[in-house]
Amino acid sequence: MTEHSLKKQSKKVQPTSVNKKLLLSFLLIFIVAALVLVPSFNHNVASGISAINAESLTTPAATSQFSTIYDTLKYERSIHILAMLLVGFGFLMVFVRNHGYSSITATFLVVSIAIPMYMVIKSFGGEEFSMSTINIDTLLFAEFAAASLLIAIGAPLGRLKMDQYVAMGLLFVPAYIFNEWLILESGLFKGFLDTGGSIVIHAFGAYFGLGVIANTLSRFKNDPVCENTPSTNQFCLLGSMILWLFWPSFTSAIVAPDRVVLTAINTIFALCGATFATYVFSKIIRGKLEIEDIANAALAGGVAIGSTCDMTTPGYALLIGIAAGALSVIGYSIIAPKLEKLIKGTDTCGINNLHGMPGILGGIVAIFITGRPFVQLSGILVTVCVAFILGKVTGTVINLLGKKEIPYSDEDEFFLAE
Amino acid sequence: MTEHSLKKQSKKVQPTSVNKKLLLSFLLIFIVAALVLVPSFNHNVASGISAINAESLTTPAATSQFSTIYDTLKYERSIHILAMLLVGFGFLMVFVRNHGYSSITATFLVVSIAIPMYMVIKSFGGEEFSMSTINIDTLLFAEFAAASLLIAIGAPLGRLKMDQYVAMGLLFVPAYIFNEWLILESGLFKGFLDTGGSIVIHAFGAYFGLGVIANTLSRFKNDPVCENTPSTNQFCLLGSMILWLFWPSFTSAIVAPDRVVLTAINTIFALCGATFATYVFSKIIRGKLEIEDIANAALAGGVAIGSTCDMTTPGYALLIGIAAGALSVIGYSIIAPKLEKLIKGTDTCGINNLHGMPGILGGIVAIFITGRPFVQLSGILVTVCVAFILGKVTGTVINLLGKKEIPYSDEDEFFLAE
Amino acid sequence: MTEHSLKKQSKKVQPTSVNKKLLLSFLLIFIVAALVLVPSFNHNVASGISAINAESLTTPAATSQFSTIYDTLKYERSIHILAMLLVGFGFLMVFVRNHGYSSITATFLVVSIAIPMYMVIKSFGGEEFSMSTINIDTLLFAEFAAASLLIAIGAPLGRLKMDQYVAMGLLFVPAYIFNEWLILESGLFKGFLDTGGSIVIHAFGAYFGLGVIANTLSRFKNDPVCENTPSTNQFCLLGSMILWLFWPSFTSAIVAPDRVVLTAINTIFALCGATFATYVFSKIIRGKLEIEDIANAALAGGVAIGSTCDMTTPGYALLIGIAAGALSVIGYSIIAPKLEKLIKGTDTCGINNLHGMPGILGGIVAIFITGRPFVQLSGILVTVCVAFILGKVTGTVINLLGKKEIPYSDEDEFFLAE
Repeated sequence: MTEHSLKKQSKKVQPTSVNKKLLLSFLLIFIVAALVLVPSFNHNVASGISAINAESLTTPAATSQFSTIYDTLKYERSIHILAMLLVGFGFLMVFVRNHGYSSITATFLVVSIAIPMYMVIKSFGGEEFSMSTINIDTLLFAEFAAASLLIAIGAPLGRLKMDQYVAMGLLFVPAYIFNEWLILESGLFKGFLDTGGSIVIHAFGAYFGLGVIANTLSRFKNDPVCENTPSTNQFCLLGSMILWLFWPSFTSAIVAPDRVVLTAINTIFALCGATFATYVFSKIIRGKLEIEDIANAALAGGVAIGSTCDMTTPGYALLIGIAAGALSVIGYSIIAPKLEKLIKGTDTCGINNLHGMPGILGGIVAIFITGRPFVQLSGILVTVCVAFILGKVTGTVINLLGKKEIPYSDEDEFFLAE
Repeated sequence: MTEHSLKKQSKKVQPTSVNKKLLLSFLLIFIVAALVLVPSFNHNVASGISAINAESLTTPAATSQFSTIYDTLKYERSIHILAMLLVGFGFLMVFVRNHGYSSITATFLVVSIAIPMYMVIKSFGGEEFSMSTINIDTLLFAEFAAASLLIAIGAPLGRLKMDQYVAMGLLFVPAYIFNEWLILESGLFKGFLDTGGSIVIHAFGAYFGLGVIANTLSRFKNDPVCENTPSTNQFCLLGSMILWLFWPSFTSAIVAPDRVVLTAINTIFALCGATFATYVFSKIIRGKLEIEDIANAALAGGVAIGSTCDMTTPGYALLIGIAAGALSVIGYSIIAPKLEKLIKGTDTCGINNLHGMPGILGGIVAIFITGRPFVQLSGILVTVCVAFILGKVTGTVINLLGKKEIPYSDEDEFFLAE
Repeated sequence: MTEHSLKKQSKKVQPTSVNKKLLLSFLLIFIVAALVLVPSFNHNVASGISAINAESLTTPAATSQFSTIYDTLKYERSIHILAMLLVGFGFLMVFVRNHGYSSITATFLVVSIAIPMYMVIKSFGGEEFSMSTINIDTLLFAEFAAASLLIAIGAPLGRLKMDQYVAMGLLFVPAYIFNEWLILESGLFKGFLDTGGSIVIHAFGAYFGLGVIANTLSRFKNDPVCENTPSTNQFCLLGSMILWLFWPSFTSAIVAPDRVVLTAINTIFALCGATFATYVFSKIIRGKLEIEDIANAALAGGVAIGSTCDMTTPGYALLIGIAAGALSVIGYSIIAPKLEKLIKGTDTCGINNLHGMPGILGGIVAIFITGRPFVQLSGILVTVCVAFILGKVTGTVINLLGKKEIPYSDEDEFFLAE
């Protein structure tokens, strides 16, 4: 950046009201979170570190070697998931015209909030959280939480101030951890199958997001609407492709080592099925292709295969994918307008069509494998309700921080060239 | 997507003729393919699944652990190749102005066709295909088929209706499998060296594509021509970089585990040589740099190193790369216009320059390692002929589906904003 | 590329002076480099190859298997680093308007120079260089050199002819190897801690780049200035995200196998801290968000955690990241204009703010772990001085090749459409 351009920009600074107190209290939360993770304060961190040191000091035994190797293989998948979180979700949300900076900055911020905050909360004592925090599994679960949060912010996208994304992230993480504990760890839903998170990650994020936007339509009634352009949509398609191609690492992140390949093949087949079905149904329903369908509904196969990704076979996976792609296109083209009226809110990214309904489909399909319809259905229902209610509460809280000045625009938050 | 924008778009739907019957029969093919892969119908799928189950039930033995680990390491490379297929090839083809949606959708579709269809065909009984289908090697070979198909569609790019890409994909896969069998499995070309697919993947795809476009020039005589812009070219360079950087995982995908590093270093050296030679020769031949050369010819090193990638050393690899880069620039700047007259067709992406000639160069260089010029040369010749002839047949068939209304444009297939 | 467009372009060729002799001597350097790496000439290459062959011939012993696996795991990280080098650095530098082709081509070229040249020089005999060249560690160190070079070219970016980037690359590599040897291998700075290269990679590259531009301001006094647009900045943010997400593979590239996960978690926490601090301080200092801060300063956590990445814990990493992000924003907003006056040169990418100061911060923090302030501080000081002086010499040499005709523009080097 040259001196010249710096000068030019500084002229354009309008005296917008930067809420410094709020910003500094956000920063304080981060600093406290850091201190909580210092080993001498935190038993679970200390035991994680000492486990690493013990390993390296003592054994070159094969068992220890294998666990190091499997951890490093998981590490590779954790990086793939980071690619989905940042480039994938980030650019998928760039489709909103004149809102690219905000979409990407919000992505950066909520990932930077969700990952450390999840690990901080998990590092506290208590029966359920007794595992040591410094390991690859905690990181992967933290990334799942970040994914779910990124799904949730897709609903109000373009209508929140940057500070509100931050606040939403800070409120989301404990809500997510509560539901994760309730469904997977509390013992209330024993036998609930959701390996790749159709319900706990995708549906939770989607209905939390819908909760946030419920009844907010009136607040933005006469405001400019969301627009997109071929150039912004091309970035969006890049995000879509990044999500598609790294999806197998998302579903196989925590499966047993010898299930990784099967899980990956199932996931790829589900994505292929959804992509193809999206093409067929988008054209048949609408008469022409809608690029929004291609960018989004093609991913519905990944969402729906989540629950059963390591237990099914490629043939069934292809069928699940076809069904999910078709359902998602129907969602974008037919159901979305009706839902918006029902909840009186605008779902900018159509997360109900991509993550909500295909997630529930995935959770229901799992009944054929577990043979426990009651557990599976009640787990789904509880997740949807918990997500929607806590989302609605969160929406009420973040509304206290005010209203974005110019919806669907970078202008009120960023310096723009020219 | 807001309600408002949905309304706006629905006005723009022109009553184009959507061939619903064709679309539904495509869908039927997918559903049948899914059923073929159901374990109870298909011995090879069942044995693949049961092998996985057996492994996890019985042994924590080291040998089984090692095979799981090597499979997972291959899995990582399979994801890298997916990145090449979608983001790499997809965005490399975005350079055509006003055709970005079509290029990317076509990429999504042919990948979603090639991978499952390859695995379905390979899962049928018969001597040659007796291997179990559900394993990482089948997935990698399926991805190779998808790569070859993506090369092939580069030739007619911009002049096919979306349905024609689908039909081309469905016809390509069996043709590719036939040639793969003929050259590598039939025993007729024993000792043929082509580890990274200079011939079987790159040259096959290139000459299949040229076959498809041969004699089609007259069909598009007075139509608008292919254009590009700095913005579309920047996306194209992104695709190019993604191809470049993941190329080592393409060539080392199926080499012996202790050859992966050598193969990767050789591949990187070949790419470095080609990139540098592209710079030098583009400037010397043309007087100024042509961005198309940088985006494409820089990759020719990866194409040419394919045949010998695990058997040569970095010094030779650098030389092969330099030669391939030079050859590819000469192809784009000098040979391409002549070839277009010869085959009376337009090669939109210049696949002969990037995949055709450098592929053949790679196949010929392998003679220095195998010492079997006859086998190597006849394998090359047969591949080129089989590809061109089957491509020409495919071209004739897909021409039956009609002619794209507006060449090099998204307009006739997609809703466009504004 | 159609015949038509080829014709159109050939008209636009202006008789610019292509320095053919220079180009051919560059090519000659590449060819000589290739010959140097031919095994029969070069003991270190031959021993590397024969080690690979020996392994595969003899043992399926577990120890050999483990070393193959660990090498392949490192290989995966080497690909991640390639993604950072090409897409990451390449697109981060696309923010300059009308200069995208040059930024990306320069990236391609300097990567293609640095990697083989580093390995060629390292393959020469002599005590220090006796390790065999053909292994994954050499490749990783070569990639580090390429990263450092990419940092360096960020300073003069937009004001060098393409030939000058090439010359700068050829001069940089031996300078980098000299400093690497001096600090890490000569034994003069025993106990110097810099695992992830805060000093040896980031600070070296930054101060080398500042050396190159020192006192060049007058040469470009009345020239057009560097500009950016939302579209170019969006590509820049893509580069930023790619750097962010693959950073853990950069810092953990060469750590002990059982330290990879801890290193990765520390790195991610540092990046999260820096991203969040960037948001807070950019808004407080400037009154509004500056996208340049988000794209760059968010990465400062990765720079600063380098030195201590495998020895600290996540809590401290988060604090280091927060400090680095804050420092980097202060650099971009307050220090940069003053520094430009001091060295009388324009630092296009602000590398002092992203790699210089945060790198030094990282090196200083390591004192708390090593407890050797003298070694650590003198290593930092020597690196900064060596880098700046050799950078200044390099700047003087490449100035002999003339002056870019139109700064911050692709026009004088590339054919542009329309």
